[in-house]
Amino acid sequence: MKFIAEIDIMPLKALLDPQGKAVTQSMKKLGFDNVSNVRIGKHITLEIESDSKEKAMEQVNEACRKILTNPIIEGYNYTIREVEK
Amino acid sequence: MKFIAEIDIMPLKALLDPQGKAVTQSMKKLGFDNVSNVRIGKHITLEIESDSKEKAMEQVNEACRKILTNPIIEGYNYTIREVEK
Repeated sequence: MKFIAEIDIMPLKALLDPQGKAVTQSMKKLGFDNVSNVRIGKHITLEIESDSKEKAMEQVNEACRKILTNPIIEGYNYTIREVEK
Repeated sequence: MKFIAEIDIMPLKALLDPQGKAVTQSMKKLGFDNVSNVRIGKHITLEIESDSKEKAMEQVNEACRKILTNPIIEGYNYTIREVEK
């Protein structure tokens, strides 16, 4: 079975997010003065072949921990759905 | 009312995504050989003050078009939810 994983990787809440801060300031200057607390992370989609949704989720979790994120500065969450044939 | 917007910005399907291609290859080499078609984009969260959800959505859409994305190479979608007091 083929699954699609959607992964969001964000800077941890406790950390400054300089890119997000810069975009917040820019937006205020450009007229979006009701916008605050912009935070910028990554969105990753991938396809994974697996026998079951459980195995696919486990592998995606492992990939997030080992390869896709830096757990010292980033948190992540993900969803998985089966691809319709 | 305060709303939180979650925005996903991805390279358009028609375009090559060199960063995604590189990660696909790396993952295969690292034992995730059932993973394919990795695509990497941005995930942005922001808070927005607004009278109504409709107005907030309109503003987020405008911000995406004018500031947060490059429509020539990126597509986006977003969701908005009200912050619980």
